[in-house]
Amino acid sequence: MTDTNPTAALLIIGNEILSGRTQDKNLNHIALQLNERGIRFMESRVIADIHEDIIEAVNILRARYSYVFTTGGIGPTHDDITTECIAKAFNVEVVEQPDAINRMQSYYDERGQEMTPARRRMACTPKGAVLIDNPITLAPGYRMENVFVMAGIPKIMQAMLESIMPLLEKGQLMHSQEIVANVSESAIASYLSDVQNRYPDTEIGSYPFNNDGRYGVSVVIRTTDKSALAEAAEAVKTLLRQHGDLVG
Amino acid sequence: MTDTNPTAALLIIGNEILSGRTQDKNLNHIALQLNERGIRFMESRVIADIHEDIIEAVNILRARYSYVFTTGGIGPTHDDITTECIAKAFNVEVVEQPDAINRMQSYYDERGQEMTPARRRMACTPKGAVLIDNPITLAPGYRMENVFVMAGIPKIMQAMLESIMPLLEKGQLMHSQEIVANVSESAIASYLSDVQNRYPDTEIGSYPFNNDGRYGVSVVIRTTDKSALAEAAEAVKTLLRQHGDLVG
Repeated sequence: MTDTNPTAALLIIGNEILSGRTQDKNLNHIALQLNERGIRFMESRVIADIHEDIIEAVNILRARYSYVFTTGGIGPTHDDITTECIAKAFNVEVVEQPDAINRMQSYYDERGQEMTPARRRMACTPKGAVLIDNPITLAPGYRMENVFVMAGIPKIMQAMLESIMPLLEKGQLMHSQEIVANVSESAIASYLSDVQNRYPDTEIGSYPFNNDGRYGVSVVIRTTDKSALAEAAEAVKTLLRQHGDLVG
Repeated sequence: MTDTNPTAALLIIGNEILSGRTQDKNLNHIALQLNERGIRFMESRVIADIHEDIIEAVNILRARYSYVFTTGGIGPTHDDITTECIAKAFNVEVVEQPDAINRMQSYYDERGQEMTPARRRMACTPKGAVLIDNPITLAPGYRMENVFVMAGIPKIMQAMLESIMPLLEKGQLMHSQEIVANVSESAIASYLSDVQNRYPDTEIGSYPFNNDGRYGVSVVIRTTDKSALAEAAEAVKTLLRQHGDLVG
């Protein structure tokens, strides 16, 4: 299978983000990792711990993008409903994974602790899922077709993602260059639009900023074509120099 | 109009979030503000600067929730496409807003600067929109029915949100209590589930943490019913004390 333009979406399952209690720290990390592998990160959603909402979002996103990542909701408590929702989305049952059970059993045996039903729950996945190693705690993540189900705790999510990345199709790398100048964005807007039109294979983004009362603009050029990047960057620099000074 | 359970969604329009260049800082602020007004924050999406994607998301979200907030894409440059997309979503044209034009005209006149087409663009909204004041820079946000279109720069977004909040229907306030203990989440999971079943009008969330190698769990109870909150909190405290010590 060769997919030259693999795409991805992230589904953050978490009441705690929507209530404002917690700030998500996973999106940015996943964005940077996907970028390094040339996978286009197209969309991210945060949704509540509601069965129908999770099932619907999983089914929409997995049909639309090459890969879907989910974070959150795979722990042992009653509010961890991701696995039952993924199973429903794929129309399969939830089953125990013998490998995970064995590993957890010996872990708890060693510590003289019980393998409670709640702990067994963390060894369950939708039928057909392939486990994703969790080197930090015991509860694994898993892959179900193009859907990768990960923990929400950043450190664990990052470890899982590291083992997932080599499994993903590589896409064309996106090269980028940032050019910063102390000019007003609205002063250069129409000229910048001309540059964008001259280099249609690049994506030119313009981000105004205000650092301690000093206004300026950061122009970011992104493209898979290195020579287009160099040419567009020259054009942007020339334009910005006509209206102010480059910074950095 | 009385809507006792107003809901809301946030649409973050921004390639720069998906590329990993920028970390969103608006979601958490909006979450906390909505919470204070008793409005249920149900969903947030980050999408790319792609016309069809923006139009589709706006139409889905505005049909589903009482209020939709968008951030990003209302500046003067070619990559600011939010306004034309909102207009298409509502099937109206983009028009200049005389009030905004006048204010900008006198601002630029005072400074001997030109009212360029790019600057005029920031005074444009979909036909029928009501302006939202921007006390920091000149370019206004706007309301189009139940959709509130705001700037992406956090300081400006926050100022716009402040003037929007009094316009929104109040919902039932969600009260919450957090109880932290140094117990393993999997040890209390089944008992916590019993507590949840006994207090169905509360939402009990369980969040494990690891601070410098010390594992513990934070249990958050949320409900609009103050007496249910007090009772459920007592039950959770009793449960956690049976398995470890409360923290704080």
